[in-house]
Amino acid sequence: MTSITTKQIRLAKRPKGMPEKSDFEWNKMALENPDTGEVLLKTLYVSVDPYMRGRMSDSKSYVKPYEVGKMITGGVIAEVIDSKSSDLQKGDVVIGDLGWQTYHLVPENQLRKINPEQAPISTHLGVLGMPGMTAYFGLLDIGKPKEGETVVVSGAAGAVGTVVGQIAKIAGAKVVGIAGTQEKINYLKNDLHFDEVVNYKSENFRDELKQACQDGIDVYYDNVGGEVSDSVLRLINKGARIPVCGQISLYNLEKPDLGPRIQSQLLINSALMKGFIVSDYGAHFEEAIQDLAKWLNEGRLTYRETVVEGFNNIPDAFLGLFKGENIGKYIVKVADREVN
Amino acid sequence: MTSITTKQIRLAKRPKGMPEKSDFEWNKMALENPDTGEVLLKTLYVSVDPYMRGRMSDSKSYVKPYEVGKMITGGVIAEVIDSKSSDLQKGDVVIGDLGWQTYHLVPENQLRKINPEQAPISTHLGVLGMPGMTAYFGLLDIGKPKEGETVVVSGAAGAVGTVVGQIAKIAGAKVVGIAGTQEKINYLKNDLHFDEVVNYKSENFRDELKQACQDGIDVYYDNVGGEVSDSVLRLINKGARIPVCGQISLYNLEKPDLGPRIQSQLLINSALMKGFIVSDYGAHFEEAIQDLAKWLNEGRLTYRETVVEGFNNIPDAFLGLFKGENIGKYIVKVADREVN
Repeated sequence: MTSITTKQIRLAKRPKGMPEKSDFEWNKMALENPDTGEVLLKTLYVSVDPYMRGRMSDSKSYVKPYEVGKMITGGVIAEVIDSKSSDLQKGDVVIGDLGWQTYHLVPENQLRKINPEQAPISTHLGVLGMPGMTAYFGLLDIGKPKEGETVVVSGAAGAVGTVVGQIAKIAGAKVVGIAGTQEKINYLKNDLHFDEVVNYKSENFRDELKQACQDGIDVYYDNVGGEVSDSVLRLINKGARIPVCGQISLYNLEKPDLGPRIQSQLLINSALMKGFIVSDYGAHFEEAIQDLAKWLNEGRLTYRETVVEGFNNIPDAFLGLFKGENIGKYIVKVADREVN
Repeated sequence: MTSITTKQIRLAKRPKGMPEKSDFEWNKMALENPDTGEVLLKTLYVSVDPYMRGRMSDSKSYVKPYEVGKMITGGVIAEVIDSKSSDLQKGDVVIGDLGWQTYHLVPENQLRKINPEQAPISTHLGVLGMPGMTAYFGLLDIGKPKEGETVVVSGAAGAVGTVVGQIAKIAGAKVVGIAGTQEKINYLKNDLHFDEVVNYKSENFRDELKQACQDGIDVYYDNVGGEVSDSVLRLINKGARIPVCGQISLYNLEKPDLGPRIQSQLLINSALMKGFIVSDYGAHFEEAIQDLAKWLNEGRLTYRETVVEGFNNIPDAFLGLFKGENIGKYIVKVADREVN
């Protein structure tokens, strides 16, 4: 096999506030043929996720910052097109934390093989992947919803929020979603059967939220932070649990984020708030995937993807996350499988 | 026995901001003789505690607000001087949630008998009472300090903070206290053997705190809130635990309390914050008292009390809590025991 040239997208400079297209740069690079234990991959799907914004800054976050002038990395699904690995064959589909590239030369041990018969392969970036597991662990391990309790989820129409709400329904809770467009609200109510959905852009948001949560709030799964969360926290019940999964409303702020301090609210309600990242639960990924796949097959868990085509559109898709463009998981489709 | 007249202190009006003496009013009332199941009590010690400030407002707090024109209630140690109870005899010492009164006529089932041989009776308002148990449960059940970890406690010289720091030492942690006077700092360092104590009134508080916590902060036991807590939270480690016990710096604020939102800090550190009140642990009080009494007898737990004499001085002692007057438990001694 002759050597292959890959396109790649790098971080050109650290974004200030809302990222712009000029924060990214394109590059080409020749890849060697695989050595023993290595495989050559062709990218099929690239995941864009809100947490990546944190890695574009050089402040402390979950994970190491991206380096300026280096590739951006994240969840990628790819097909093995050449292999010197004993575990992976040509035609296998794999997932890994890989670069924004059209092709990859990587050691086999950085990859996990996907069973394409289990579910559409793109679901491994969404409902059966990192966002699905993030919903699963945050809600069940921290939120611990009980039958009849009220669970509120912000960023409800996103890749994580849609799964949170559906698992909360499976747990027998009343589910109240918070989202920002009528299309999202319709989807959450009609397709995912959320009990109530409130638009945080409404002038009367606070009253509408109170109306939707007449028994108060027992679990608040927080994807957004900021003023939306301030309003939610005013309504928590004694013993409330608050998994903090993301703070997307703040990721592009240039100023320190000031708001009402929440400790008194936690104090008078004996409430628990806990931040987490899905990798905290690395030892339990298999359990989560099994449960999620079971619910998916039973039809108790459904999903939607927002798919953009074309490698060059990855940065635009990423920027779209902060404009509320996506319903469900936002994915870029880069290529079709060669072997079907 | 002829009827007895009790003095009582009532809430004259709801304080605005820092309470003033004019928020209290004095009254006298004749008490009947005890009926079956009742006892007549003479007050020996009255506890003044920061949480009482919350009950003087009519906003939602841990417990119901005090009513204007009605007695203020709290922890009181008293001696039985007349009894129609089968369980309590004249001369017995009891503790209960009773009014700020010199005498009380109450049903026996509102009282718990104290063993005066176990420890000085006033300790049942402090190290062996509500503050000691508050320290115990918040630190051990929420903070869960491990050997070698760094535990920071604010309000370190108070009734709760002094016990928190000593239990953290027993657990093998490095203990950093935060206090506001040199006298308190000396006491915490020299008598209680805290590893470091930082003065929050220092101009360089933030740097000094960082210096004292070179390995970051694993547990922050928060008694004060506000800007002190903002500074502490900047230094937490991955997996930090933050029991929120009190927010004394805020109790007298008239404006909403604004500060940097903390969710991002919890998120990037997978940190846990939990409010609580000692009554959440009602089922486990006996275990706590046994452990605390054991440590007290072994000399591993020591205490100091700030004692003011005279019933009429109760409001002044209460106001003193917010001026940082006390080291250890602040108690008002009202009378000596009749039977010794």
